[in-house]
Amino acid sequence: MKSFIEYSPDSDFPIENLPFGVFTSAQNHEKHIGVAIGDLILDLHVIAHLFDGPLLKSKQNVFKEQKLNEFMGLTRPYWVEARNTIQKLLDATNPTLQNDSALRQRAFVKQSEAQMHVPAEIGDYTDFYSSLHHATNVGIMFRGKDNALFPNWKHLPVGYHGRSSSIVVSGTPIHRPYGQTLPVEDADPHFGPSRLMDFELEMAAFVGGPPTQLGERITAKEAGDRIFGFALMNDWSARDIQKWEYIPLGPFTAKNLGTTISPWIVTIEALRPYIVENFPQDPTPFSYLRHDDNFNFDIKLEVDIKSEKSAVSTTVCRSNYRYMYWTAKQQLAQQTVTGCNIRPGDVLGSGTISGEASDSYGSMLELAWKGTKPIRLLTGEERKFIQDGDTVTLRGYCVDDDGVRIGFGKCEGKLLPAIPFEE
Amino acid sequence: MKSFIEYSPDSDFPIENLPFGVFTSAQNHEKHIGVAIGDLILDLHVIAHLFDGPLLKSKQNVFKEQKLNEFMGLTRPYWVEARNTIQKLLDATNPTLQNDSALRQRAFVKQSEAQMHVPAEIGDYTDFYSSLHHATNVGIMFRGKDNALFPNWKHLPVGYHGRSSSIVVSGTPIHRPYGQTLPVEDADPHFGPSRLMDFELEMAAFVGGPPTQLGERITAKEAGDRIFGFALMNDWSARDIQKWEYIPLGPFTAKNLGTTISPWIVTIEALRPYIVENFPQDPTPFSYLRHDDNFNFDIKLEVDIKSEKSAVSTTVCRSNYRYMYWTAKQQLAQQTVTGCNIRPGDVLGSGTISGEASDSYGSMLELAWKGTKPIRLLTGEERKFIQDGDTVTLRGYCVDDDGVRIGFGKCEGKLLPAIPFEE
Ligand SMILES: [Ca+2]
Ligand SMILES: [Ca+2]
Ligand SMILES: [Mg+2]
Ligand SMILES: [Mg+2]
Ligand code: NI
Repeated sequence: MKSFIEYSPDSDFPIENLPFGVFTSAQNHEKHIGVAIGDLILDLHVIAHLFDGPLLKSKQNVFKEQKLNEFMGLTRPYWVEARNTIQKLLDATNPTLQNDSALRQRAFVKQSEAQMHVPAEIGDYTDFYSSLHHATNVGIMFRGKDNALFPNWKHLPVGYHGRSSSIVVSGTPIHRPYGQTLPVEDADPHFGPSRLMDFELEMAAFVGGPPTQLGERITAKEAGDRIFGFALMNDWSARDIQKWEYIPLGPFTAKNLGTTISPWIVTIEALRPYIVENFPQDPTPFSYLRHDDNFNFDIKLEVDIKSEKSAVSTTVCRSNYRYMYWTAKQQLAQQTVTGCNIRPGDVLGSGTISGEASDSYGSMLELAWKGTKPIRLLTGEERKFIQDGDTVTLRGYCVDDDGVRIGFGKCEGKLLPAIPFEE
Repeated sequence: MKSFIEYSPDSDFPIENLPFGVFTSAQNHEKHIGVAIGDLILDLHVIAHLFDGPLLKSKQNVFKEQKLNEFMGLTRPYWVEARNTIQKLLDATNPTLQNDSALRQRAFVKQSEAQMHVPAEIGDYTDFYSSLHHATNVGIMFRGKDNALFPNWKHLPVGYHGRSSSIVVSGTPIHRPYGQTLPVEDADPHFGPSRLMDFELEMAAFVGGPPTQLGERITAKEAGDRIFGFALMNDWSARDIQKWEYIPLGPFTAKNLGTTISPWIVTIEALRPYIVENFPQDPTPFSYLRHDDNFNFDIKLEVDIKSEKSAVSTTVCRSNYRYMYWTAKQQLAQQTVTGCNIRPGDVLGSGTISGEASDSYGSMLELAWKGTKPIRLLTGEERKFIQDGDTVTLRGYCVDDDGVRIGFGKCEGKLLPAIPFEE
């Protein structure tokens, strides 16, 4: 497959990818839906009339919305037809866009000149805890090797409801939060800036398909058509605040201070060539959590930290989505097992994705092992947690046997100093 | 104050109340904003042009929305002006509506002929745990008297993010959920219908005012102008599912199966005459959680259970909102302390509201003390938890020294049998 749009071989956005996002530009203050191709964005608002396939012909308006929810609220055959149409329009042999210079000028925007936005209205966001190595690491640190995993962990994908208002797009700065912590056990709590700011390397699965009714379950077998695609996600976490507040109802203000997602949603269609075997599950989960097909993905994940003092980034973590114990289908089955209704645009966070190797851990908590093994950056600086001025960048990409590479763009955020609390 | 609309002295909706809601009717399939008065609804969509005060004159469109968010997104002076305008229009001495029979016919709808809806788009819903007696009761049951309260409980309003998609309006039936439980400690979990279905008597505070920015804190002192009003809330809970799933990230599927709210939001303005002293707090909380004024309310709360076999309801609980240890202002301060942004329409659930007396406990878990003291209904039936076919009704009302009574209407839901799980 070759496009008439030129891009470098290591572009995240070849014609095989075609992720969806929402952008504005200097020319256009209204949000438009677009697809990334090389360094450009194809503006689907402008070419909505070219979706003339049997399904989308009567649904072109979904491409004129300011968010992806309506498009995601259709079904997989629509998504496939959209992808095929876009791929055909971008193909080197297709004249429709290529040779219509007026349309072409309007239809393409440089990514460098666009502002990306959170691509969907996220009605509800759930964060899971589905990487075995991450759960084990955290368990060993806080409860010792023998009690690392809680008894429920291998029976169901443990998760909790997160805060949707504070999900922000890559590039949004995050302030170090104030909050309550307990610096000395059994002493009085302290109120002040968090001292243990962390990232969490995660992926966000976007739910698609029509909304369900309250009471309706979606089993793991049925869930495949309900996952639209994935983006990168950094679940910023204030470890010291979390530790003091989370008993007995779970993380709350330690996690709602901001969650960064990458702007492009890479679809399941684009990810299919990179499907790998599911993580072996023992014990066999209950029927509602079982699906026979593979729904795990070989997505290479990296985290860079760059201090404010230097232009040099250090890759502190190399992980992979394939380390997920529970699949996104299983997560959705768990989300809905008691009859919770879903809406297109809902987000299922993977949970921190850690591998077995100590440089594949998806958080500073694990990488620097609770502060006991500081990470050394290429600049010589040390890090136990994230410092003010640090920029944290998540990247993800897939490469198949033929060398075809698709990427997720980046999920980046800079940690700014705390805003002083005034009495 | 006397209205030209007639209603009985024990109506929940006298002219002193004027709660806001959203309804449709046979004549009107589009959602309209309305205000309850006696047995009627005043349709604000129809009389939007009568909001001619200095503030609302240019904002009449907020009353033509299909949800309350835009109105709630204004500030308290707007809310006060709206209330004053409505009170004036309904006053017995005012001819505007009273004597315009054509307008009057269009402007009033019988509540018995209207369908109520969730009154706002609830962007995010947080559930707190702010009743001392409830937290103590649960603590005693599961950890014994000496460790009843966790160390953080008196330092901050403990809370967790809930599921906004499954908040439904009074009257919506709820299905008993399937889920995983651990009937025998240390044995294998079981998958099947929950056996321990419970209600939780709560109140929902609706957040108002313009949205805040990520990073912005709202202190308890600033929070007063951010609480628009209250509704009743039943946080349906599957106790057995909760117990198995909630460690370490908190309640998830045990709570997202449905949360029922009453349709009318009673405003802070209406509730002011019923303000009572805050619950004494020791230790004194941190500055961000302190406010000097009283923001506790004498709202009498009752829960009825009616089995399917009989027309007779039994009041199983008589509690009061005044038992809240943490105020809604303090809850909002906690919600935002780390910089979490809020949006008008957000809901802060109070947490189960239990008093000291054993008939004031706000859940079956406490009323029947973990099943050890079954409740006897007036029909002679016994209840440890909620049975299929039971209707649970929450009611709330305030009475002042002059006998002026305002009410919340009802928050009702029937528990239907589980939908069988098919492999
Ligand atoms: Ca997380
Ligand atoms: Ca609750
Ligand atoms: Mg987060
Ligand atoms: Mg609930
Ligand atoms: Ni447009």
